Amino acid sequence: MKTITIAVDAMGGDYGPSVIVPAALHVLAKHDSLHLILVGDETALQKELQTGRAYDKGRMTIHHASQCVGMDESPAIALRTKKDSSMRVAINLVKEGKAQACVSAGNTGALMATARFVLKTVPGIDRPAIISTFPTRAGKKNMRMLDLGANVDCTVDHLFQFAVMGSVLAQAVDNIENPTVCLLNIGEEDIKGNEQVKQAALLLASSNAINYTGYIEGDKLYSGRADVIVCDGFVGNVALKTSEGVASFIKYLIKEAFLSSLFAKFVALLALPVLKSLTKRIDPDRYNGASLIGLRGIVVKSHGGAKRYAFAHAIEEAIVQVEKDISHLIHAKVEQLLKLQVITEQKKQTDEE
Amino acid sequence: MKTITIAVDAMGGDYGPSVIVPAALHVLAKHDSLHLILVGDETALQKELQTGRAYDKGRMTIHHASQCVGMDESPAIALRTKKDSSMRVAINLVKEGKAQACVSAGNTGALMATARFVLKTVPGIDRPAIISTFPTRAGKKNMRMLDLGANVDCTVDHLFQFAVMGSVLAQAVDNIENPTVCLLNIGEEDIKGNEQVKQAALLLASSNAINYTGYIEGDKLYSGRADVIVCDGFVGNVALKTSEGVASFIKYLIKEAFLSSLFAKFVALLALPVLKSLTKRIDPDRYNGASLIGLRGIVVKSHGGAKRYAFAHAIEEAIVQVEKDISHLIHAKVEQLLKLQVITEQKKQTDEE
Repeated sequence: MKTITIAVDAMGGDYGPSVIVPAALHVLAKHDSLHLILVGDETALQKELQTGRAYDKGRMTIHHASQCVGMDESPAIALRTKKDSSMRVAINLVKEGKAQACVSAGNTGALMATARFVLKTVPGIDRPAIISTFPTRAGKKNMRMLDLGANVDCTVDHLFQFAVMGSVLAQAVDNIENPTVCLLNIGEEDIKGNEQVKQAALLLASSNAINYTGYIEGDKLYSGRADVIVCDGFVGNVALKTSEGVASFIKYLIKEAFLSSLFAKFVALLALPVLKSLTKRIDPDRYNGASLIGLRGIVVKSHGGAKRYAFAHAIEEAIVQVEKDISHLIHAKVEQLLKLQVITEQKKQTDEE
Repeated sequence: MKTITIAVDAMGGDYGPSVIVPAALHVLAKHDSLHLILVGDETALQKELQTGRAYDKGRMTIHHASQCVGMDESPAIALRTKKDSSMRVAINLVKEGKAQACVSAGNTGALMATARFVLKTVPGIDRPAIISTFPTRAGKKNMRMLDLGANVDCTVDHLFQFAVMGSVLAQAVDNIENPTVCLLNIGEEDIKGNEQVKQAALLLASSNAINYTGYIEGDKLYSGRADVIVCDGFVGNVALKTSEGVASFIKYLIKEAFLSSLFAKFVALLALPVLKSLTKRIDPDRYNGASLIGLRGIVVKSHGGAKRYAFAHAIEEAIVQVEKDISHLIHAKVEQLLKLQVITEQKKQTDEE
């Protein structure tokens, strides 16, 4: 089995090494061919490793980095002044070929800016996007949505490129043969939506490379109708965070209802195990690990508030993406599309002559 | 007490007269000074009235209209070819001063296009918007959000006007003295967001007429932090429908969990009354009745799938808006703002000279 090496920004997130080191040890124990490079303050990491479970020292190394990027730091300042941050060094390791992917729970804006600056985008992709996985009503079927906030003003070409990248990821990582792709819109009729979405729909419908199946509305996001949902980063971020807000509002109301009387409290005791199975199904920890897709290298972003289990899940996502060689698959797909475009244009010219 | 006359499009929505007539009778019985004009096919309405409860014939009249606007009909075609539709005639009655408001459960696009064409906007308001009320975590405190889908590409001025209109409505209808207004964005820091939102934030922050309190993210929509949330119609529609989608997804999962075993089914029997109190709190029927705000007349839009209780709620919303004289309040507020602007600009000029 081929060795996989992943650089882990061990200082990022709300909890830093105290969560990230145990998560790393947990994943290391599960994968024999995995090497992890913990990037961060050596003393802090050594200390955390000593209190943790035993591990194969040949497969886990520490790479010292003297700085940290703050969770609220401006991406531009982090990029300029934090050249030895755990985040930047972890990304550098990918750039230098010493790691095949990096995972960070740090500041999303800084991670995006740094990854884009250091790694650059795949040829044919203008901008990287943030993509994540979501549960759906349709049993075990998941959905991937992008962009979730990296790009607030998207052109038609950007939306098309997001569709290509989402499609490649769903096919390779989720093993879906011909993933259905929908554009998020405010109606399902052709006349609905803004100009970018309408033009992107025409472009997607004319391409054989994408299994584009039309518009989808917000109320169908989790229906399982689409394998990949494409939207601009502003809209995607609002949809994502609104979903979190509604889920937490309902959770709050359920709690309130079950505390409203003595009888309700008694029922709650019985209902708890039943409702546990529900929360497991949509447990955000199980879906932790968004990808910064479209870069020449794999970068997985964990939720800042991730605990051990959730952060481990983000590392697992990186492992699968390395195994499937996602960056190269996207590159190949874009190249194929560009070639097709050239051929079509040449054919048009010949026909016109 | 002053008489209030409301025109009801009795043919709109998924159920037409069979739901709308009983709802109208129900509301009529509750308000002594209310007059309702049922607009639609006279024969169908007569039939429905005969089977319904007894009512004061002096306060409920039928206004015949020979056409109906289909739920999927294009707004442009409805506007051009359905000049005697129940929707158009109900709006005409407002225009002619024969009714002070109209309520319809019909096609939203057609209602917006027709209302805008017939009634025109309040001076100083470029575009009407769709606004609705939502529950929040904060007990009985509600939140109003706009635009929910009437305008897909909004300028900075549009967003500012939405803030003014939302603020007036929250103050007059919800009796909030100095309603807090937030802009929906993808982060709370100043640097986040697209150009329109950033510019609108500057404009709102500089105005004393609006109690602008900053950006709000999707996960805080239902937190109760804001009385009024402003966004463009694309984003607002996605947020609204995503909320519906998440709520129905969770409802589905709860049902699934409670059907998963015999024990769970038994618990479900006990939990049902407890969960009922929860669903009552966020019952969409209680929040039925979006307003097409910014027009020279009051137009309330009921959900197309509204049943009797929900449609009655939409009529009640129209009654309150008539009592508070919403269109004139908005007009007065905009006029005051425009005057202020003129004064500020004159002052600037004098200072410069």
